[in-house]
Amino acid sequence: MNLVIASPHPRFSLNQATIRYASLAEAVNLSSEAGAESIGLWREPVAKAGLDEAVRLVTDAGLRVSSLCRGGFFTMPEGPARRAAIDDNRRALAEAAALGAPTLVLVAGGLPEGSRDIAGARERVRDALGELAPDARAAGVTLAIEPLHPMYASDRAVISTLGQALDMAEQFGADAVGVVVDTFHVWWDPQLFAQIARAGAGGYIASYQVCDWATPLPADVLLARQFPGDGVIDFEPITRAVLAAGYRGDIEVEIFNQGIWDSPAADVITRTIASFGANVGVHLKR
Amino acid sequence: MNLVIASPHPRFSLNQATIRYASLAEAVNLSSEAGAESIGLWREPVAKAGLDEAVRLVTDAGLRVSSLCRGGFFTMPEGPARRAAIDDNRRALAEAAALGAPTLVLVAGGLPEGSRDIAGARERVRDALGELAPDARAAGVTLAIEPLHPMYASDRAVISTLGQALDMAEQFGADAVGVVVDTFHVWWDPQLFAQIARAGAGGYIASYQVCDWATPLPADVLLARQFPGDGVIDFEPITRAVLAAGYRGDIEVEIFNQGIWDSPAADVITRTIASFGANVGVHLKR
Repeated sequence: MNLVIASPHPRFSLNQATIRYASLAEAVNLSSEAGAESIGLWREPVAKAGLDEAVRLVTDAGLRVSSLCRGGFFTMPEGPARRAAIDDNRRALAEAAALGAPTLVLVAGGLPEGSRDIAGARERVRDALGELAPDARAAGVTLAIEPLHPMYASDRAVISTLGQALDMAEQFGADAVGVVVDTFHVWWDPQLFAQIARAGAGGYIASYQVCDWATPLPADVLLARQFPGDGVIDFEPITRAVLAAGYRGDIEVEIFNQGIWDSPAADVITRTIASFGANVGVHLKR
Repeated sequence: MNLVIASPHPRFSLNQATIRYASLAEAVNLSSEAGAESIGLWREPVAKAGLDEAVRLVTDAGLRVSSLCRGGFFTMPEGPARRAAIDDNRRALAEAAALGAPTLVLVAGGLPEGSRDIAGARERVRDALGELAPDARAAGVTLAIEPLHPMYASDRAVISTLGQALDMAEQFGADAVGVVVDTFHVWWDPQLFAQIARAGAGGYIASYQVCDWATPLPADVLLARQFPGDGVIDFEPITRAVLAAGYRGDIEVEIFNQGIWDSPAADVITRTIASFGANVGVHLKR
């Protein structure tokens, strides 16, 4: 190859949601060819490939699996749907363990249909973690609560801040439950740096994910994420804080954005690596 | 009149933004005819009517002015634009005093164009409050910081939570600076009830505004507000908490919603009063 592309930082990990329409094999091959050492996987493409094949793909490529996305969605009251959700999270823990992923990312879930009881929904998240914590310890996989931006509080995740996620994680211990720091979701939080330090002190940072925030938001606010550097987030202080808090894991770029999804995956990886390097990698030691 | 309509709760106040296309005279007359005792005004329609005429209109109608919206937008660095913003806030304080409004609602402002320094923008909000606090005391008008939903943190208001607003207000004292509790902006906050209690203990609740949150959000997220009862907010615990915290003022319904703006103002007032009564008034004593 005559084209010289700087290899990504060793802690860079492409979360495969960034190239949503690529198969697992394509995502693994593109990451590997780009020189990445790590990849963040999603359950649906893993299931499509088959778990054994997925394990083989990442093993053959020599990639670490930085996290498996995602479990959670357990805010519903007791009943068959809740039992099914808990069981599904147990399967997700087993899949993460098989893939060697240290972390299962959890999205809490929103208010159940017709409910206005956000406090009750939050209690049910805590209860679900209590049920799953022994399985997480046994699997050697951390249940990582991802606080989602408060604009998703009603329909996606009733856990909205890092402090709230930590209040919950600390009830179980960092050997079972941790938190995700995703810049898109937490950049605005006036308590961000205090809570990152708190999370680090207890060893609770299970994943650090980066992407950017820009306005106006698209009509579907789920797809508002941008490449690092294309929005208003200052990645330097957040990255330095996460490192100072002792996080030693891989750093994922996870972007949901229709325009990016519609671009060729190879181009997206190149741009992801470049934007990570310029905005995040530059604050990491090689 | 043969039609019997229950008169609104004495603490109900229509924020005139809910009937955005009505003139001040129309808003005052419709509120008065509907039996409201209070109205929340905006500076632009007041300016259009002329301040003296505005004072005459509300006085003749026997209406209290629950608040004047809005001041703020002072996150820019020092320079002519910042001086103009501070001066404009001084004029807004004088207008509020002339109208008998106890409160000037402040929207902090977003990140200056091209800036990623949210901490700096927040410091400049505090600095502006420091400049304006003596004017507020002299005018007998409270500068009420409105924490806006975090989805507006980059482009509208770098003050995103009640706790953050209180951290700022407490530097100046409740005789000069208070906070707005707007259900739409704060309903998701896991610290909501603790911060309402804290605000009440210090006498910092300068305004309580109600409207509802529903998803999916419209393409323009500024216009996402709904009539109380049309979304997922449980108004009972929040209203009870605000009352228990000692808030004795009027309670505004403030809705930005294109569909509601496009409806006849008289219908909107009727529906506003009914939705307020059913979801908020029912938790107030007569």
